[in-house]
Amino acid sequence: MQKLQILVLHGPNLNLLGIRERSVYGDLSLDQINAALADQMAGLHGLIECQQHNSEGAIVEAIHSALGNKDGILINAGAYTHTSVAIRDALSGVNLPVVEVHLSNIYQRESFRHHSYIAPIAIGQISGFGLDSYLLGLKALIRHLRKTQ
Amino acid sequence: MQKLQILVLHGPNLNLLGIRERSVYGDLSLDQINAALADQMAGLHGLIECQQHNSEGAIVEAIHSALGNKDGILINAGAYTHTSVAIRDALSGVNLPVVEVHLSNIYQRESFRHHSYIAPIAIGQISGFGLDSYLLGLKALIRHLRKTQ
Amino acid sequence: MQKLQILVLHGPNLNLLGIRERSVYGDLSLDQINAALADQMAGLHGLIECQQHNSEGAIVEAIHSALGNKDGILINAGAYTHTSVAIRDALSGVNLPVVEVHLSNIYQRESFRHHSYIAPIAIGQISGFGLDSYLLGLKALIRHLRKTQ
Amino acid sequence: MQKLQILVLHGPNLNLLGIRERSVYGDLSLDQINAALADQMAGLHGLIECQQHNSEGAIVEAIHSALGNKDGILINAGAYTHTSVAIRDALSGVNLPVVEVHLSNIYQRESFRHHSYIAPIAIGQISGFGLDSYLLGLKALIRHLRKTQ
Amino acid sequence: MQKLQILVLHGPNLNLLGIRERSVYGDLSLDQINAALADQMAGLHGLIECQQHNSEGAIVEAIHSALGNKDGILINAGAYTHTSVAIRDALSGVNLPVVEVHLSNIYQRESFRHHSYIAPIAIGQISGFGLDSYLLGLKALIRHLRKTQ
Amino acid sequence: MQKLQILVLHGPNLNLLGIRERSVYGDLSLDQINAALADQMAGLHGLIECQQHNSEGAIVEAIHSALGNKDGILINAGAYTHTSVAIRDALSGVNLPVVEVHLSNIYQRESFRHHSYIAPIAIGQISGFGLDSYLLGLKALIRHLRKTQ
Amino acid sequence: MQKLQILVLHGPNLNLLGIRERSVYGDLSLDQINAALADQMAGLHGLIECQQHNSEGAIVEAIHSALGNKDGILINAGAYTHTSVAIRDALSGVNLPVVEVHLSNIYQRESFRHHSYIAPIAIGQISGFGLDSYLLGLKALIRHLRKTQ
Amino acid sequence: MQKLQILVLHGPNLNLLGIRERSVYGDLSLDQINAALADQMAGLHGLIECQQHNSEGAIVEAIHSALGNKDGILINAGAYTHTSVAIRDALSGVNLPVVEVHLSNIYQRESFRHHSYIAPIAIGQISGFGLDSYLLGLKALIRHLRKTQ
Amino acid sequence: MQKLQILVLHGPNLNLLGIRERSVYGDLSLDQINAALADQMAGLHGLIECQQHNSEGAIVEAIHSALGNKDGILINAGAYTHTSVAIRDALSGVNLPVVEVHLSNIYQRESFRHHSYIAPIAIGQISGFGLDSYLLGLKALIRHLRKTQ
Amino acid sequence: MQKLQILVLHGPNLNLLGIRERSVYGDLSLDQINAALADQMAGLHGLIECQQHNSEGAIVEAIHSALGNKDGILINAGAYTHTSVAIRDALSGVNLPVVEVHLSNIYQRESFRHHSYIAPIAIGQISGFGLDSYLLGLKALIRHLRKTQ
Amino acid sequence: MQKLQILVLHGPNLNLLGIRERSVYGDLSLDQINAALADQMAGLHGLIECQQHNSEGAIVEAIHSALGNKDGILINAGAYTHTSVAIRDALSGVNLPVVEVHLSNIYQRESFRHHSYIAPIAIGQISGFGLDSYLLGLKALIRHLRKTQ
Amino acid sequence: MQKLQILVLHGPNLNLLGIRERSVYGDLSLDQINAALADQMAGLHGLIECQQHNSEGAIVEAIHSALGNKDGILINAGAYTHTSVAIRDALSGVNLPVVEVHLSNIYQRESFRHHSYIAPIAIGQISGFGLDSYLLGLKALIRHLRKTQ
Repeated sequence: MQKLQILVLHGPNLNLLGIRERSVYGDLSLDQINAALADQMAGLHGLIECQQHNSEGAIVEAIHSALGNKDGILINAGAYTHTSVAIRDALSGVNLPVVEVHLSNIYQRESFRHHSYIAPIAIGQISGFGLDSYLLGLKALIRHLRKTQ
Repeated sequence: MQKLQILVLHGPNLNLLGIRERSVYGDLSLDQINAALADQMAGLHGLIECQQHNSEGAIVEAIHSALGNKDGILINAGAYTHTSVAIRDALSGVNLPVVEVHLSNIYQRESFRHHSYIAPIAIGQISGFGLDSYLLGLKALIRHLRKTQ
Repeated sequence: MQKLQILVLHGPNLNLLGIRERSVYGDLSLDQINAALADQMAGLHGLIECQQHNSEGAIVEAIHSALGNKDGILINAGAYTHTSVAIRDALSGVNLPVVEVHLSNIYQRESFRHHSYIAPIAIGQISGFGLDSYLLGLKALIRHLRKTQ
Repeated sequence: MQKLQILVLHGPNLNLLGIRERSVYGDLSLDQINAALADQMAGLHGLIECQQHNSEGAIVEAIHSALGNKDGILINAGAYTHTSVAIRDALSGVNLPVVEVHLSNIYQRESFRHHSYIAPIAIGQISGFGLDSYLLGLKALIRHLRKTQ
Repeated sequence: MQKLQILVLHGPNLNLLGIRERSVYGDLSLDQINAALADQMAGLHGLIECQQHNSEGAIVEAIHSALGNKDGILINAGAYTHTSVAIRDALSGVNLPVVEVHLSNIYQRESFRHHSYIAPIAIGQISGFGLDSYLLGLKALIRHLRKTQ
Repeated sequence: MQKLQILVLHGPNLNLLGIRERSVYGDLSLDQINAALADQMAGLHGLIECQQHNSEGAIVEAIHSALGNKDGILINAGAYTHTSVAIRDALSGVNLPVVEVHLSNIYQRESFRHHSYIAPIAIGQISGFGLDSYLLGLKALIRHLRKTQ
Repeated sequence: MQKLQILVLHGPNLNLLGIRERSVYGDLSLDQINAALADQMAGLHGLIECQQHNSEGAIVEAIHSALGNKDGILINAGAYTHTSVAIRDALSGVNLPVVEVHLSNIYQRESFRHHSYIAPIAIGQISGFGLDSYLLGLKALIRHLRKTQ
Repeated sequence: MQKLQILVLHGPNLNLLGIRERSVYGDLSLDQINAALADQMAGLHGLIECQQHNSEGAIVEAIHSALGNKDGILINAGAYTHTSVAIRDALSGVNLPVVEVHLSNIYQRESFRHHSYIAPIAIGQISGFGLDSYLLGLKALIRHLRKTQ
Repeated sequence: MQKLQILVLHGPNLNLLGIRERSVYGDLSLDQINAALADQMAGLHGLIECQQHNSEGAIVEAIHSALGNKDGILINAGAYTHTSVAIRDALSGVNLPVVEVHLSNIYQRESFRHHSYIAPIAIGQISGFGLDSYLLGLKALIRHLRKTQ
Repeated sequence: MQKLQILVLHGPNLNLLGIRERSVYGDLSLDQINAALADQMAGLHGLIECQQHNSEGAIVEAIHSALGNKDGILINAGAYTHTSVAIRDALSGVNLPVVEVHLSNIYQRESFRHHSYIAPIAIGQISGFGLDSYLLGLKALIRHLRKTQ
Repeated sequence: MQKLQILVLHGPNLNLLGIRERSVYGDLSLDQINAALADQMAGLHGLIECQQHNSEGAIVEAIHSALGNKDGILINAGAYTHTSVAIRDALSGVNLPVVEVHLSNIYQRESFRHHSYIAPIAIGQISGFGLDSYLLGLKALIRHLRKTQ
Repeated sequence: MQKLQILVLHGPNLNLLGIRERSVYGDLSLDQINAALADQMAGLHGLIECQQHNSEGAIVEAIHSALGNKDGILINAGAYTHTSVAIRDALSGVNLPVVEVHLSNIYQRESFRHHSYIAPIAIGQISGFGLDSYLLGLKALIRHLRKTQ
């Protein structure tokens, strides 16, 4: 079985996790999310690389860097989910399977968070389960990749 | 550890699975989905009850029947996701944790499928992973219940 | 003075009254509403028949059954108020005087509850007074019928 | 039992009642409405004071004058229902229970009459029953006040 | 020449035909429509089965029952034309040729009747010709089936 | 030939004419408009009464006062053209022929000035001709009245 | 039985039929449509006159020419269906029964083709059946005329 | 005093006047309108040329022909008022003073008739006075020209 | 240095300050605001005149009265901010520098409070700082006047 | 190398070039544009035929005439760009490569000029460069044709 | 009295001040603004740190850096005001008092500048006073901080 | 003749050209575009400098750097075309002539790509011709500059 390489991308402000708006996001830190993802990946015969960027351009370039190096992308684009055509185009451009995740349930928040530029070009979207959104999203991505290999 | 009781609800036309629009939904039948969910539940110390209804009213009543009998609801309301305030109100009414799932990625389909009346009152939504949407959704629901017990 | 026959129709989820969302609807049960309506009707020289249905089709058929048997309809169509053209057409079809009532003030809730398909074909609408919405609505209906006899 | 003081407010053009657009409003005059309200109030252990104003500012000030003097407000703001934020703010400002009434069914008329600035800050709304809208509205207001005393 | 089997579906309130809103629909009863369709079918080497349902779910299931048994569907979904994604999905799901008909000209009525969820997945739509909408629709369906056999 | 009585109503800010926004309205004063109207009326066998009000309520009451005293109303409601349902209702209420005029061409200005609440209940509208809008409007009103006498 | 005179009007680009966008419209030429209509008319005791125009003004004038000479109009206004108020007004102006037809199902195409200026002033609309749209439309028109004679 | 040359343009379907939709437009024929305009012009030291066209292109060219030959344009563009950018551009192009008139009150009719492409580039608009709309419009145009000479 | 004269205008319901909706506006009374403004003005070589009106017409006339008497206007038009074209026109008409202030942050409240008719014709807008909105606004106005003197 | 035949189409009012709205379009005449295009074509081994029409129908027919005779179409449809579905359909119908050009930058003008019915069925669009829009557009068309030969 | 630390953030293109669009922004340079702010701060017992960034991500990170180091943020996010959810989320994330300022009156400019993503999470907004917007904003922020200490 | 200096800016993801979405963009690489532009510039007496940036802020700064160094800007802002007010402001700020180009026809793609923030402040826009969009755009820019020198 081929070892799968997954790029995990965290969008703007996610470095504040555990600090920022705890009533919405809880105490979980980004390191804890990454560690949990690595833990889970251990049992799934693959490797993850985690990056967090606050700049739209940096996320675009991180996606480009996956071209030829990764088998899929797990992304929580945060605020850029709702405003960035550039990230959507980058994901379309590298043509890798993408799973979109959100910690909070975006459909319970302001109406401008209900639209995602990424969802239409992703395999699927998982929203509202906190850390579990990431863990389930990684699992979904791995299973998608194993099925289509 | 308490044995968890989950109601799994399939909305209209899902009985056609494996027959209907295979290009969209594949060969999977509803029985296979139910069996896979039961399989997974075996390892999670719980019980599932699966129902499929084509009538909005029947879904409303199935939700009511969960009151006092179930710990949570996993629902793919199909077409009613986009048109039924009654199902939303039933889910709010019984006040049980709800996870919303969709086989296909609803954000890649007609624009009237992009809005869900259920999402704002669910814990979260999973869309686009076929059978895995259900399996991951059940997992998310169980973990949510274990955490809040 | 002719004895008036009124059909009282309760829409989806109203069987949950006294159980569901108490912060919105209070402790009142559907049986208590029906009893209060019967009490009031005692003094108004008439008879009421109360039905509650969770299915849109069942409400449509209950309306049809009033044709030739009832003098008017008092309806709280609940969630179907906002989504059902079929119930509107049934009410137009039987051509009986209709009074529309709501327990809660629908103009204080989600914007999709601000529109009623029934209001334009009803005599009038009463919204926001809990049990009193029903009692006042019944009174309004009876007075309308007495005036037009 | 405390004697309740109610301010009854009639908005612009309601002084024309019995004269204006009889096909819509019938022959009823404003004095007849006020007399009927006083009649009903006689049996409800309270006092009403009736005012009609054609000016938005005068209605705002009438509402202010209720502060400390009245227990509740019954209002048919007429055309200002649909255009006046100032009257809404006045009603919020004095923080008295408000019942909104309309002679005609506003949902059967031009679409700009379907929206009320007052409804979201009132206890409830009664529309379409002619004189009965006022009588039922007064009753609803009194019962609300008695319940919350 | 193969004998064609057609399911004729009448939506909510069409059982009231000949009773309801005669100014809009005339004196024609549903039985007369069905008889006229059967008459016409006699000369077209085929069989029709006519059903009328007031429940969205019952229509969905009637459509499912056509799978493997019928060659095409003639449908007047009435009010559900404008609100039901479930019926649209059922029609897509069974993948049978569909012709949509309406007794009245839906483009002369309220604006919410101008949109049909069924039209985009039907062969075509016929609206405004009373009984003739059905007769012409059946003819169109039969000719479509003969051409594609 | 009966002597016709016309009420000429000028809305808010029109007392500033000749002072205000000369680039839009020129040097013409309100007195000059009134004098020109009186001049013209001299030859038309009638009488005009001119009023200017800055308050919506005062305009409503001026319209009421025309009931039984005037044969028609010539109105430039100024800013209230675009915001006042109360003035529209007053004009409908007294049921007198109304001609709507505007000094400037309202269709060349901000989009919120393109809609008039008065136009749908007036005989007609004249916009853009400065003083001539009034003179032509008065003429149109007189001719309408002479025709329908 | 009176001989009926029908004007058949084909709008812009329909002269390209059999040449243009065959994937949408097939191989059928306009002459073949006209011949098929004439064939059918032979058995219906009437005469048709067929015209095709690419200019909106020419269609308006063709409609005018029907005044006093024709008993009804069968029209496929093509692109002008969606943009021409002038053709709608011409049809209203001559006050002849109109049936609107379309070769393709306009509800499956671009959203600007979903709206017809003609439909609200026609008896009815038939869309999606290719040549049969015309043949059924002619039949519907003749039957309408025979009924109302 | 210079003799003024005015082009009077009547849009599509206005040749039907006196025939078409009498309930809306009355018995007046186009020739009668032209004669009345000529009559009035006799006293105003000018000449009118009247044209009626059903084609948008013909109206565009009639406007072009006014360049260098006419001092102003009086136009009732009929249905093209609401749909033609080409006529608007022609009027802007020749840069002559334009007065827009309508027989009926366009603000009392379908909402698509409330918008005029011509109004923003005209001196002013007169709507709703039948023949008087033309006569007043011509007067307004002449006075405008005399003032700006 | 010229002594500057400023008109301070408070709109509807602001007389309730210190009484009304304390959770939104705090305990501050209108007199305290006026005193604080006068205090500040003492050091700025100018005079203020403060008025509060509940009527739109009275505010319009207060603005007119500033013509020739004041150097600038500081206005909190309250609810009329969002509905009054007449006040906007009065401010444009007198052509004095205007600063718009709001006690609360209007962008955190209902969406109908996000639009101001005044802002586009003011120098600037200050919103959200309670009493400081007024004090800063007065300062901004004075500095603007000193700069443009 | 094959000699290419290009139809150059100028829409309504473009015959006014050099006369009309010079501030927008400059002094350039249509003949000068045509001459410049012919000049350029001399070096590109091809022939152009230039037509200008003010009528939508005439443009439709000019497009039809290109079928079988031309290799491509260069079109500035002027005002019809924004209103004509018929021209779009004609261009789709003849299935020739189309380049859309505009003298002025349509995105700097009224919002109704921002939408083009032609752009979605053209190869590309060039807007804002005056004569150069045509010259560059012709070049683009020729290069497109050479590439796809 | 505690020494207050304020982060002053200037968004994209503000480094061009004094160079760019002088007709809109005048001759003021960013250094002059910063100096004026420092000057004012001298008297307010505090310290400011000024940063200008053209990148959305850099602004997000500058906001993060304020966490634990600053007492409040004064921000002119320039163009990002209207497009950046990421900056809004950063400001919410660090949970520091924010004052939003704009040099120009954003309500006098293009409609896309009328909406601010920042305003709903700021204390307040100041717009239109040039340098004074900053100076008044800083003052407002300091007073807010002193009050809530 | 002065040597012209042009900045060529490529927006996000354009570095993927030749790799990304070949069905849309073909095999062309960014280096090939730059080389072709340099080739063409050789004959036009000028110099180009080409930059590609994935970050909005970097593009803003590249535009700033052109101030005083370049004569014009040729820009394909890619995804930022549709979302970036900052880039628009940068282009306005440096006040250099701008030509906007797109490889693909943006009017044939998703509706969110139909709007450009850049177009209204550019000389013109060229869309849909692949490499030729750039080459023609450069030519248009050079000719514009030569004309206005």
